[in-house]
Amino acid sequence: MPTMMLDLPQGSYPIHIGPRLLQEAGLLSSLVTGHRAAIITNTVVKPLYMHWLSEALAPFQPVVIVLPDGEPQKALSTIDYVVGELLKARCDRQATLFALGGGVIGDITGFVASVYQRGVPFVQVPTTLLSQVDSSVGGKTGVNHALGKNMIGSFYQPRAVIIDTTTLATLPDRELSAGLAEVIKYGVLGNYEFFVWLEDHMEALLSRDPEALTFAIETSCRDKARVVEADEKEAGLRALLNLGHTFGHAIEAGMGYGQWLHGEAVAVGMVMAARLSERLGWLTAADVTRLRNLVAAAHLPTDPPAMDAKRFLELMAVDKKVLGGELRFVLLRGLGVAFITKDVPFDVLTDMLNS
Amino acid sequence: MPTMMLDLPQGSYPIHIGPRLLQEAGLLSSLVTGHRAAIITNTVVKPLYMHWLSEALAPFQPVVIVLPDGEPQKALSTIDYVVGELLKARCDRQATLFALGGGVIGDITGFVASVYQRGVPFVQVPTTLLSQVDSSVGGKTGVNHALGKNMIGSFYQPRAVIIDTTTLATLPDRELSAGLAEVIKYGVLGNYEFFVWLEDHMEALLSRDPEALTFAIETSCRDKARVVEADEKEAGLRALLNLGHTFGHAIEAGMGYGQWLHGEAVAVGMVMAARLSERLGWLTAADVTRLRNLVAAAHLPTDPPAMDAKRFLELMAVDKKVLGGELRFVLLRGLGVAFITKDVPFDVLTDMLNS
Repeated sequence: MPTMMLDLPQGSYPIHIGPRLLQEAGLLSSLVTGHRAAIITNTVVKPLYMHWLSEALAPFQPVVIVLPDGEPQKALSTIDYVVGELLKARCDRQATLFALGGGVIGDITGFVASVYQRGVPFVQVPTTLLSQVDSSVGGKTGVNHALGKNMIGSFYQPRAVIIDTTTLATLPDRELSAGLAEVIKYGVLGNYEFFVWLEDHMEALLSRDPEALTFAIETSCRDKARVVEADEKEAGLRALLNLGHTFGHAIEAGMGYGQWLHGEAVAVGMVMAARLSERLGWLTAADVTRLRNLVAAAHLPTDPPAMDAKRFLELMAVDKKVLGGELRFVLLRGLGVAFITKDVPFDVLTDMLNS
Repeated sequence: MPTMMLDLPQGSYPIHIGPRLLQEAGLLSSLVTGHRAAIITNTVVKPLYMHWLSEALAPFQPVVIVLPDGEPQKALSTIDYVVGELLKARCDRQATLFALGGGVIGDITGFVASVYQRGVPFVQVPTTLLSQVDSSVGGKTGVNHALGKNMIGSFYQPRAVIIDTTTLATLPDRELSAGLAEVIKYGVLGNYEFFVWLEDHMEALLSRDPEALTFAIETSCRDKARVVEADEKEAGLRALLNLGHTFGHAIEAGMGYGQWLHGEAVAVGMVMAARLSERLGWLTAADVTRLRNLVAAAHLPTDPPAMDAKRFLELMAVDKKVLGGELRFVLLRGLGVAFITKDVPFDVLTDMLNS
């Protein structure tokens, strides 16, 4: 089983990747320090995988908190609800929380862990490809505000990440593709070799070949861990991970969260970043086409929904990546070479958005 | 002007204490790093002191967010509101928040700062004695949950604490006394010399003698800073600062927040801790009387409201200081010598609560 460490000044934590990890009771129970555990999951994941985890944690009388599925759960009202359930179950400052589910469950659980009685330990057990390669690693937690996505949150690292690749067997095709968008991102932003590997193995990934999936998850987690180690709080380098996200968030917000999956919006956002890079003379038309083809091969959209430039600009202006009132873009100098710039003429941007 | 530093592994910050600090525009504006500032205050403090702060911060076009007064504001719904106002004002990740008011404003602002876009800098400008000597120093932030006080929060340090002692001129007598409860606490828990000084200077403090107040604030802040430096996250030593709080929180919760001021409940809680210490043979009756007399001299209550032992125990069981299901108490071996113990026989506790 591949295990890697994520090393930060305040401590290190392991990322375990492999089949049937949810059945390894010894590994799971070793992650609880206090007397109690709590499992936060949702109505979709609970019938599929809860029994393994609750069995492994039985000695810690786990309280199980089940949320409805979906992005609308990422709200302060959910935090209020989960905190109430933990209090009713008499969970104290030593309780360990387990996030069993996708990115929404991970973001909510991580945020609750960071604020419940001013902080308790938690473990990420991501069950979707998207959360396995993205949100479960790196310690970003949070919920949405009516006026913007992820506007309320914290940097709070889990005690461990447990990636049971067997859980991908039940993932709907559309969500598998959405996860592949973030996988592709790691190739595009800084790992050309991996980009080429993805061009060669997209079929294997879509047919859920275990070895191909494990390699893709491992490479994505390692690439992400190295970026987070260099810049946990997103002072600079970590912003590269937002490749495709400035446009992607605008699409998600503009269409109403949940209409487009996050990965689908990011896929289109990456193609838009590539097209903008081409217009600015930093990327060849051939490279834009290669990216577009890889995205399409993953059964992901390559073009934005019908939304005019004005609406895009409006939605991007409240994006977190606005620094001192100026928009920063993650663009490409080549496949595998992303960089951050504010130097995007307004008319070039609006031309690309209108084209 | 007395200035002291609070030194923590992640960085140091200054605590400035003196008259008319709100008029020192240079000092205040030097604390803003980005382009924008936001002032969070309430309807009582705004007409008294806002003009100084907004004038000092004028170059940063401060957005002013005014909340109603009182403990009920410490709720997630307020966090949602403040975040919305910051987003509407286009405050980005570089914005600096200023908490102008008492403990409620400081706790809310600190918590918002810790979670707004995953963390922005903030400055404490406490205007009540209670917040000047207690909540503004040490980085505890948070809001209440329907099921418990301060159950949602974070450890998040301010960039600086600005204590303008002139603001105490407008503080109601009852709130001055409530603040003195926390001042007395520092003497009782670890500074016998200061306890004696307080016995000699209570009259001067109640008549708002500027020199006496400055000395009391400075000593309290220094004592607190040393404890926080030794144990920021309350793994051990910092729990000493909860002297009087286990009983005090039960009184506040049992009577409904706002009926008893926090300082009043802590004052009674300290006397109760002393009485329990006496019953366990750790404190003399004479010392209990000295503490009771000092508390009374500060115009604070010395006896709990009519609430039976059963209700007290019920309310204390969801207290944050419950570790692994066992109640920990901060008790006294003498005036100026507090310690933490779980070793309190149940019948001795109930006898004290019923007496």
